[in-house]
Amino acid sequence: MGRCTVLGAGSWGTALAIVLADNGHEVRLWGHRADQIEEINEKHTNDKYLPGIQLPDAICGYYQLDKAIEGMDIIILAVPTGAIREVLQKMVPFLTKRVLICHVSKGIEPNTLKRISEMIIEEIPEQFLEDVVVLSGPSHAEEVSKRLPTTVTASSTNILAAEKIQELFNNQNYFRVYTNPDVIGVELGGALKNIIALGAGISDGLGYGDNAKAALITRGLAEIARLGTKMGANPLTFAGLTGIGDLVVTCTSVHSRNWRAGNLLGKGHKLDEVLKNMGMVVEGVRTTKAAYQLAKRENIEMPITNAIYNILFNNFPPKHAVEGLMGRNKRQELEDLYLISKQSNG
Amino acid sequence: MGRCTVLGAGSWGTALAIVLADNGHEVRLWGHRADQIEEINEKHTNDKYLPGIQLPDAICGYYQLDKAIEGMDIIILAVPTGAIREVLQKMVPFLTKRVLICHVSKGIEPNTLKRISEMIIEEIPEQFLEDVVVLSGPSHAEEVSKRLPTTVTASSTNILAAEKIQELFNNQNYFRVYTNPDVIGVELGGALKNIIALGAGISDGLGYGDNAKAALITRGLAEIARLGTKMGANPLTFAGLTGIGDLVVTCTSVHSRNWRAGNLLGKGHKLDEVLKNMGMVVEGVRTTKAAYQLAKRENIEMPITNAIYNILFNNFPPKHAVEGLMGRNKRQELEDLYLISKQSNG
Repeated sequence: MGRCTVLGAGSWGTALAIVLADNGHEVRLWGHRADQIEEINEKHTNDKYLPGIQLPDAICGYYQLDKAIEGMDIIILAVPTGAIREVLQKMVPFLTKRVLICHVSKGIEPNTLKRISEMIIEEIPEQFLEDVVVLSGPSHAEEVSKRLPTTVTASSTNILAAEKIQELFNNQNYFRVYTNPDVIGVELGGALKNIIALGAGISDGLGYGDNAKAALITRGLAEIARLGTKMGANPLTFAGLTGIGDLVVTCTSVHSRNWRAGNLLGKGHKLDEVLKNMGMVVEGVRTTKAAYQLAKRENIEMPITNAIYNILFNNFPPKHAVEGLMGRNKRQELEDLYLISKQSNG
Repeated sequence: MGRCTVLGAGSWGTALAIVLADNGHEVRLWGHRADQIEEINEKHTNDKYLPGIQLPDAICGYYQLDKAIEGMDIIILAVPTGAIREVLQKMVPFLTKRVLICHVSKGIEPNTLKRISEMIIEEIPEQFLEDVVVLSGPSHAEEVSKRLPTTVTASSTNILAAEKIQELFNNQNYFRVYTNPDVIGVELGGALKNIIALGAGISDGLGYGDNAKAALITRGLAEIARLGTKMGANPLTFAGLTGIGDLVVTCTSVHSRNWRAGNLLGKGHKLDEVLKNMGMVVEGVRTTKAAYQLAKRENIEMPITNAIYNILFNNFPPKHAVEGLMGRNKRQELEDLYLISKQSNG
């Protein structure tokens, strides 16, 4: 039985706390809103994020960060990417020993263009950081909280740390954890897929069908793999759970926030209106900005990312942008996909 | 303007005839049922297969095979894989010159384990066969008949033949055709994806969620690529429209017959009852048998195909078979996917 704290009481943090509790661990779940923590401790529910789900008693809510992490060995970081640096900085004064940090967020920081594991290494002094692991894969929180079968990947440059997280979360009945040493590929796949999910939502919102969406997913994965491989990822990771798997689930499921935001954009709503409407963080919007900057820095062609960027930030009409993608002047299919190996060699 | 005949007046054959008519071609559409052909010629509808769709006047229905192909240069073969040899054999006596045959079916022949292009080359004497092309990709007929954006791939060992079919079908407004020289990969991807679609339907029918289905799609693509690469396909083809693209659309769309058949199986119905219920050919059932035999011949591990085979032909309970897949004893994710390159080198 391990002692661990989940930082972030949104839907994914709460779902992961359920898995840990089901596995017999004592779990602290931290959120900064006192009323939400009170609900978790008194009613054992978190109705805004996981409506209708009864939380196990072994989950104990905390709204004070120092108390939440006191004496803990493992910290699961489940806050939106935009809040990660702030939470890490607030945490540092309370650390008294090395901790293993496992993050479960999916994004890239605009402007610095850092992955989340890089942000953790920057913010946590070496003497307090045992290792960093990322847990990612096709995993809607709603389904995990209902104990529906789910498979994910734990990734770290230190395989022993990845295996520790694998042991912690693996549940024979419904939650299967694999390991993968390719942190860059796992983090980039998880982050960049949200851009394509926005695109899939836009396509559906415009009234296009499944044929168009399948083409978008296919070409989207190719451009994610192009960028990722240039940045040092293993191309095979993009064919795995954190690549194709997560991309498919995010682009085709009604649970996906990014798909839903895209869907509203496709139907003609403006970005600020959509974000207000959602009431939860839509990671794909920030990630689109970061990926657009990364593609420029790495000199990689990312036509879908460019189109979504122009819809989000330059007021391009969605229909026009999507039609531009259909009309691209490539006639031999593998030319596009072959760029993967060409670019990884040079 | 070309003269071409589509053999097979099911939903896909009819949808392709619409594309050809939209492109200004004179199209003959052959089906063996006189009443259906009468409906096509008099009402310009094909209501059993494409309900609510008005057919262009340029589509002319034929129920006599000799009249349908007389004088034609290009034949589009759109019959179920189980009927292909019979139709080819009936056609031969009426051929008077070389024809370009483009097939659009997705399957593998059980026992002989032949791909469709191999069956065409076997059945049509060399002096009457100009070339063979396969047209494949994520393309539900219903959406094409509504002129919703669709992208497909034309593949032939002779790139000029593939480009001829590309020119014939390409439509700037809604039907984009790429080329790919990898016939083996294109044919196998299209055929084998129907097995995974049966599995996705079974998973949904059992009440599992999108997380489970995404894992199934990911591992399904890996086993398709393993077998395909061993048989001489280019692994990158499986990352393209006829691989991932077609797999995703077939596993996640309500239009998919294979998904619907799987869904009924997952809900506890028996195979013969399901097939009677569907009223249309479910290619995945035959293909599962063929792929099971191929995996044995090529000595390739295909756990999903095996599980579906056991459900279809050995009365294994679906829940038991799917749980067996979740509990497999692989812990490092890329071990599974790396088999691709190991096997292609040996």
